[in-house]
Amino acid sequence: MYRTHNCGQLRITDAGSEVTLSGWVQTIRDKGFMMWIDLRDRYGVTQLIFTEENTGADLFEAARKLGREFVIQVSGKVIERSSKNDKIPTGDIEIEVQALQVLNAAKTPPFTIEDNTDGGDDLRMRYRYLDLRRANVQQNIIFRSQVAIETRKYLAEQGFIEVETPVLIKSTPEGARDFVVPSRMNPGEFYALPQSPQTFKQILMVSGFDKYFQIVKCFRDEDLRADRQPEFTQIDCEMSFVTQEEVLQTFEGLTRYLFQATKGITLPEFPRMNYDEAMQRYGSDKPDIRFGMTFTELNDLAKGHGFSVFDEAELVVGFCAEGQAEHYSNKDIKELTEWVKRPQIGAKGLVYIKLEADGSIKSSVGKFYSDEALQQWAAHFGAKAGDLLLILSGEAEKTRKQLGELRLEMGRRMGLMQANDFKPLWVVDFPLLEWDETAERFFAMHHPFTSPKKHDIARMLDGDFETMKSLRADAYDLVINGVEIGGGSIRIHDRALQEKNFKLLGFTQEQAESQFGFLLGAFEFGAPPHGGIAFGFDRLCAVMSGQKSIRDFIAFPKNNQGRDMMIDAPSPIAGEQMDELYLQSTWTPGS
Amino acid sequence: MYRTHNCGQLRITDAGSEVTLSGWVQTIRDKGFMMWIDLRDRYGVTQLIFTEENTGADLFEAARKLGREFVIQVSGKVIERSSKNDKIPTGDIEIEVQALQVLNAAKTPPFTIEDNTDGGDDLRMRYRYLDLRRANVQQNIIFRSQVAIETRKYLAEQGFIEVETPVLIKSTPEGARDFVVPSRMNPGEFYALPQSPQTFKQILMVSGFDKYFQIVKCFRDEDLRADRQPEFTQIDCEMSFVTQEEVLQTFEGLTRYLFQATKGITLPEFPRMNYDEAMQRYGSDKPDIRFGMTFTELNDLAKGHGFSVFDEAELVVGFCAEGQAEHYSNKDIKELTEWVKRPQIGAKGLVYIKLEADGSIKSSVGKFYSDEALQQWAAHFGAKAGDLLLILSGEAEKTRKQLGELRLEMGRRMGLMQANDFKPLWVVDFPLLEWDETAERFFAMHHPFTSPKKHDIARMLDGDFETMKSLRADAYDLVINGVEIGGGSIRIHDRALQEKNFKLLGFTQEQAESQFGFLLGAFEFGAPPHGGIAFGFDRLCAVMSGQKSIRDFIAFPKNNQGRDMMIDAPSPIAGEQMDELYLQSTWTPGS
Repeated sequence: MYRTHNCGQLRITDAGSEVTLSGWVQTIRDKGFMMWIDLRDRYGVTQLIFTEENTGADLFEAARKLGREFVIQVSGKVIERSSKNDKIPTGDIEIEVQALQVLNAAKTPPFTIEDNTDGGDDLRMRYRYLDLRRANVQQNIIFRSQVAIETRKYLAEQGFIEVETPVLIKSTPEGARDFVVPSRMNPGEFYALPQSPQTFKQILMVSGFDKYFQIVKCFRDEDLRADRQPEFTQIDCEMSFVTQEEVLQTFEGLTRYLFQATKGITLPEFPRMNYDEAMQRYGSDKPDIRFGMTFTELNDLAKGHGFSVFDEAELVVGFCAEGQAEHYSNKDIKELTEWVKRPQIGAKGLVYIKLEADGSIKSSVGKFYSDEALQQWAAHFGAKAGDLLLILSGEAEKTRKQLGELRLEMGRRMGLMQANDFKPLWVVDFPLLEWDETAERFFAMHHPFTSPKKHDIARMLDGDFETMKSLRADAYDLVINGVEIGGGSIRIHDRALQEKNFKLLGFTQEQAESQFGFLLGAFEFGAPPHGGIAFGFDRLCAVMSGQKSIRDFIAFPKNNQGRDMMIDAPSPIAGEQMDELYLQSTWTPGS
Repeated sequence: MYRTHNCGQLRITDAGSEVTLSGWVQTIRDKGFMMWIDLRDRYGVTQLIFTEENTGADLFEAARKLGREFVIQVSGKVIERSSKNDKIPTGDIEIEVQALQVLNAAKTPPFTIEDNTDGGDDLRMRYRYLDLRRANVQQNIIFRSQVAIETRKYLAEQGFIEVETPVLIKSTPEGARDFVVPSRMNPGEFYALPQSPQTFKQILMVSGFDKYFQIVKCFRDEDLRADRQPEFTQIDCEMSFVTQEEVLQTFEGLTRYLFQATKGITLPEFPRMNYDEAMQRYGSDKPDIRFGMTFTELNDLAKGHGFSVFDEAELVVGFCAEGQAEHYSNKDIKELTEWVKRPQIGAKGLVYIKLEADGSIKSSVGKFYSDEALQQWAAHFGAKAGDLLLILSGEAEKTRKQLGELRLEMGRRMGLMQANDFKPLWVVDFPLLEWDETAERFFAMHHPFTSPKKHDIARMLDGDFETMKSLRADAYDLVINGVEIGGGSIRIHDRALQEKNFKLLGFTQEQAESQFGFLLGAFEFGAPPHGGIAFGFDRLCAVMSGQKSIRDFIAFPKNNQGRDMMIDAPSPIAGEQMDELYLQSTWTPGS
């Protein structure tokens, strides 16, 4: 037996006991005649004391040879500390060591095992096993485990069945790129890794499972932007005989439960906002509603006064940054203008109106509009002295998105995005289809299995091109603090409607049949009405922790090149492996 | 809202309530003036009653048009049944239907949706969504979900953290064949799908997670024998600072808990048997100990009497089939002899000794041995009148395995393998290495990370070839009713020992470094002693249910060619997909 207790367990009531502990040497303080070692494991830290007098010279010398991160086993007596540490639960006691065994030595780690480490990203990823020893990273992974446990507890209590869907499935070109897996037993053929278990969970509804869930790995071979991972985890759910309302209630319940159970936080109400309103008032389909600064449109007031930029714009729109007038000098405004003109944002310029504390007005468009006119604008914004109005113009949709980014930036600068302030929101009534001007085709706004709203079904089956653009879906996203936690929809469960949707999305009948024939077939054998949702699990954990990076909530993440730096994957495989798979690489290094 | 209740919920106390139900039409009984429909969902079956009188002619006509597996919604009043059905919980009531809506029609299913269906394997797999509607298959999948929930509950309560390990990892040729995934972002390189998260869970121990578990998909590209799946699920665990004893205690606890929580069964004790004893007494490293018929060796008695078959054999060994003498005529014995001579078993012949009820002896070797000699054998077996002794001979290891198969066959024939009799067993003290005569190399009996027993470490580092064969490992298997549920070991946590093991297994230093360098490196930074286990989850569910096939516990299994018959995967992919991956297929149909 390596230990009688773990390193977070002993208390003053244990004083006098003989114990054995095992763990890692966290710190060593050597006073010459006396030595303290902090012994660490997942459960905590316990102080060990070595004195030449009590420990004996040999043991004392052996302890001197220990280094950081050595793994040791010690036996000794629990004694009361003379100077207590009220910051840790074991702070009242220490162990007077009588026996010491080195279980494993350790080289000096390439970075410090502390919350604020000196290790850079690459080094930390290469030595992920050491990085994961850092308390904050370890706590993230443990938190993730707790969220998973509570998720399963809640859903199981609600009657959901966890069903594992297959990982080796079929490649379907719709959506993102698939990872594929060559089949040795079926030469020339490939499996694909699932981007989501979407069709399988619908099949489970056709099978009558009624309520399904799974915490499941999904895969997308995308060019990795920051904070995307080729493999990620979803809380994936589907329910039969439900309307949108019942799905929202169930997953609002889950979200509330998770915050309460893991963080003791009672979430406020989950307001609902339709997609059009979100775009118009926040310039985003995932508004951060921890703060206001909603948009005010100015076309009526701003156009027709000879300022050609506004006159030619489809939309003039802005928001009011309360009390910010005094904080923005000309230089600051210039810097902010440069910020919106960066290619990531893409605005052509920025118009400001400063409502000075003394009642005067200062604006970049002062020569086109009278002070009286600008006061009228201010009234339209509901602004008061001391406020700063920020205005963009141009093509409506683009301008809203740009202003949405500016709103978030101002929210950040003004300290309105508090990490421990959680504001959930349901965004609902998404369009069914999205017209892509470049590709000259419709894309599914959510996915090809989403149902139009009931009253739109007839219009969808008969309507013209413009009608298609106006169709709305029972599709919904859960947003917390401006982050999309997940989304879902009521699905199509009728073969004719699904076929129509595939056709609108540019599938030939043959393509639809070869890729999704099993689902179309299943719809003919008694498919119930059904709908569901999927939460991004990595992201949920990050948002619940008030953190930005999902990478810190994944034990072994990949970098932006899709590489696991620790195991050095991907890597070349043996020629025989290629031969068995009837594959040849056409790639030549440097090509 | 599609329903106020599900189809398993209503009781006599609900009589008089107005309710709405949704579900599938299970059966229709039409008496002309009156009609009953059994409405089914996951929760149960509720009887609907339509009478021309109460329901109205239109509704009655509409009900007549319903067919099997139609999805309908009905509203009506709960009434007490005149003839009750005490076989189902809703059997006291029926619904007098007042409104009916067809939610989806259904074509006639290609096989009956009943426990004993008329559908063959292929048809059932192609229409798996219908197969999964059958109550027994659905119950298997629901049982699996319960076992998973209880597993997580138990392990979480024991302080285990569930950590997700990556699916896209690195190919390592040791062990079975890997499925590989070409990397588009790293042309010419491949990920591999994990055969198990072995190295990652060890890394988590190095990181200090102390107790890890995961219910996780694993992948092996093997030629599929019956009841193997290319993707399968493990309960995967690892613990730090533990000896074998603590691992066995923990997972005996888990197994006991699962049987109790999901089946109300209290398991008997988990005896331990070492590998050598298992092989000698049962001819198997996974003995079914629901029954005896252990082996008795006969070399001393059988050799040197002129029967050359025995004289030339390395081992003469048999068992006593109690009371079977009268059941085996010469013809039966001949048939049994043919059975052991089949290539799957491979014995050269079978010797029998019948101890007739009248005290006489009949044997195929009667002309070589006196009745007196054979009586001596019988005494050696502890046999009595009426028993049948079955004896094989030949090369020791092979003969034991053949006799082990014969023992199982006799156990089956004698009705000694009761499905609801559960007999767990720990097999321990496995050899560390296995010498392969053909390959002329050692293979790891468990896997390359298994530690020799403490007292064998020095012998391993210094020993000769024969010493290596005699090394024993802290490796253990859990066997229930002759099925290997899982296995594990205490791992190596020392770089030098791991390097020695890799060398014994035929790795060059470069190979060891390129494949497992991260683990060797991790061992240098303070790796704790650790060990673990993995249970085959699909198999566990099948064994707990007293069933043989794991396929019935997997929602979407693949067939023996690795195909998913429902979605028709694997399948060819588009040329552009191949190009993006810099791949070319060298396979030509018919080649």
